[in-house]
Amino acid sequence: MPTPPPPTGPAGLHDIRETNLGSVLRAIREGAPCSRAEVAAATGLTKATVSSIVTELIDRGLVRESGATAERRVGRPGVMLSLDDRGFVALGLEVNVDYLTLVAVDLLEREVVALHEPFAARDAGPEECAARLADLALRALEEPSLAGRALLGVGVAVPGMIDAAEGRVYDAPNLGWRNVPLRAWLRELLRKGGTPDVPVLVDNDANLGAVAEYRGGHLSHTPDLVYITGEVGIGAGVLVGGALLRGSTGQAGEIGHIPLRRGGPRCGCGRRGCLESLAGIDAILRQTVPDLVPAGPLPGTDLAAAVAATVERAQEGRGAVQRALRRSGTWLGRGVATLANLVDPDVVILGGYFAPLAPWLLPACRAAVQAHAIAPRRGGLRVEVSELGLTAAARGGAAALIEALDTGRTPPPSPASR
Amino acid sequence: MPTPPPPTGPAGLHDIRETNLGSVLRAIREGAPCSRAEVAAATGLTKATVSSIVTELIDRGLVRESGATAERRVGRPGVMLSLDDRGFVALGLEVNVDYLTLVAVDLLEREVVALHEPFAARDAGPEECAARLADLALRALEEPSLAGRALLGVGVAVPGMIDAAEGRVYDAPNLGWRNVPLRAWLRELLRKGGTPDVPVLVDNDANLGAVAEYRGGHLSHTPDLVYITGEVGIGAGVLVGGALLRGSTGQAGEIGHIPLRRGGPRCGCGRRGCLESLAGIDAILRQTVPDLVPAGPLPGTDLAAAVAATVERAQEGRGAVQRALRRSGTWLGRGVATLANLVDPDVVILGGYFAPLAPWLLPACRAAVQAHAIAPRRGGLRVEVSELGLTAAARGGAAALIEALDTGRTPPPSPASR
Repeated sequence: MPTPPPPTGPAGLHDIRETNLGSVLRAIREGAPCSRAEVAAATGLTKATVSSIVTELIDRGLVRESGATAERRVGRPGVMLSLDDRGFVALGLEVNVDYLTLVAVDLLEREVVALHEPFAARDAGPEECAARLADLALRALEEPSLAGRALLGVGVAVPGMIDAAEGRVYDAPNLGWRNVPLRAWLRELLRKGGTPDVPVLVDNDANLGAVAEYRGGHLSHTPDLVYITGEVGIGAGVLVGGALLRGSTGQAGEIGHIPLRRGGPRCGCGRRGCLESLAGIDAILRQTVPDLVPAGPLPGTDLAAAVAATVERAQEGRGAVQRALRRSGTWLGRGVATLANLVDPDVVILGGYFAPLAPWLLPACRAAVQAHAIAPRRGGLRVEVSELGLTAAARGGAAALIEALDTGRTPPPSPASR
Repeated sequence: MPTPPPPTGPAGLHDIRETNLGSVLRAIREGAPCSRAEVAAATGLTKATVSSIVTELIDRGLVRESGATAERRVGRPGVMLSLDDRGFVALGLEVNVDYLTLVAVDLLEREVVALHEPFAARDAGPEECAARLADLALRALEEPSLAGRALLGVGVAVPGMIDAAEGRVYDAPNLGWRNVPLRAWLRELLRKGGTPDVPVLVDNDANLGAVAEYRGGHLSHTPDLVYITGEVGIGAGVLVGGALLRGSTGQAGEIGHIPLRRGGPRCGCGRRGCLESLAGIDAILRQTVPDLVPAGPLPGTDLAAAVAATVERAQEGRGAVQRALRRSGTWLGRGVATLANLVDPDVVILGGYFAPLAPWLLPACRAAVQAHAIAPRRGGLRVEVSELGLTAAARGGAAALIEALDTGRTPPPSPASR
């Protein structure tokens, strides 16, 4: 089954070739079905270069030809190109406090397999989590719809602070992880499972959620887009001109720990009054369904059920539940306004468990943004709800692998890997 | 006297030429004294292209040759190049609540003229302010040290929200300005003063302060640098990888209006509990020298004196004054921590009146950053004090014009303009 793409070669002409391969792939993604001449026009490359690259991409199983479109496009007969959606698969995984998720997508970023399971990650610890993630990946690769496909790589989303270059989680307070070399562990586990040398990418869940929204959400290709995770933790993935704002140490977007209320409730990070302690799912459930959650740290497995119970009680018209959701929405809005004043995005998208709670959270959130965001006074910042559900971060993990291919940062897999 | 650079030509080969001119200028700025061959190596351009561009730059009075360095650089005899610091001047201006400032710099960004005068801008209104700014510029151009120099342009810093592309101030609450076409007004005033068609750039004071720090401050070339203005208003200029983070509507960095304290004091923007209402100079003076400031809006002319009085009282050991400064420093630190969590910079530089107050503000500010910034936990965010005094924004206005020249965004002035 899947074998790895070749390692990146030395800098120089090889890099230019990879960059051009990426440009051609991207042009075909955007323009398909399209001719070689159209690809040349879109990329600025010569027709000879495009022809040579297209031949290589076809050989590698990334692009395919068809003549059928000649009739539909008057005056443009001939062979048309499109991405080959049959040969490859990219896996996106997410571990969060209460679940594991996997999404497998083809080269067109269409979902081919999706798996979701409740899992008490905090109780299990990092080694057990890594083992379950690897199991999930290996199980997905056994699915009939992935048979014969080569694996582009595995992208893993984690709710914490990540050294993306090293693939290391150095602090994930809500999971209780410190300094976990997740990429190394997963590569070893996948190797033992018969899938050696898989490229593994590890990134923050909010960052990957933002990538998923940018590439495939209902507001995709909004250049300055922010995705906010609504889990036990709250994180922001910030895109500026379509690129992730990572910050000097890779930790930009930690909206969950901005200090909003002096002397507020204790946060998972040990501080008081962080946004997360006021509007994280933990805080919301303790106010809306106190009878369903224990006093200590939340167990990881029944948050979805507890959120559903909150929705039910709010729908029944219970005033206390609705008021608690409005309060959390207001705090969330103060956090979003703060982010808006500093970063000034086009749109902020609320994801995760915030989506089912949006009927009650969103009006209060928008009102607080309106009250406190000075920066986007002219344009009117939009606050919207994600339609990607709990799969956003995992989708982003897979999408980030395809984006790397499209932008020439990863060499396309060789034919040998099919 | 000074006449304008030619308007930007049509796109295409002309643009490439301008970009290359900028690259060569930048290479000479960084490497001077250096040979044509060294410039070719630094830019990746061919020696023939470099020779042609250098000839043009010499003709235009931007670069000069010298042979004197041949002896000092064994094995590298021949003619060396450096920037010509004699022919041009760039003017930077700032209007703030209580002063006007002008800094004139040569092509090496060395200060040639500096003017500073107290001015109650809020009382004067925008037309009068524009007239005084134009007067200041025309007066500077009469200075003997600027005699015979051609004017590269005028860069103006304003504490407010700017449409930089249009040169329009659309909201400056602390000046009481709304929708002021400052560039158009200044160009007209300068024309009437005998200086027609001057390029005029208008930008936010914090943005230009950040540019000044990046190009010429004691922490220059720190890629992810934030400059915070300490005036009646508090603004942040945010550099990411050396480039300004502008946001989708150009309003990123409005740190002064992030909501920090529910039900806090009324802010100039009409809201309550904004950072500015807790740690702006207005708020600080009302707590430290209430006997020296009136109850209503501050008059614009004696803030420097009032800040000096605050410093004096703090130095005398007055406990109430020191405590008030520490409180403001703590709020400032909560604001900086919030920014750090969202943007994760290398360094935050406190400017304006925060600099003389730093002995009391800074320890409290750093402690609050330490307490609330989760993002830069690994590296330790640095909070430092500007050494550019009240000239930072004006210097940034001049530096931005030179940066535009260096990066090929502005065509170099023609010889006719000398």
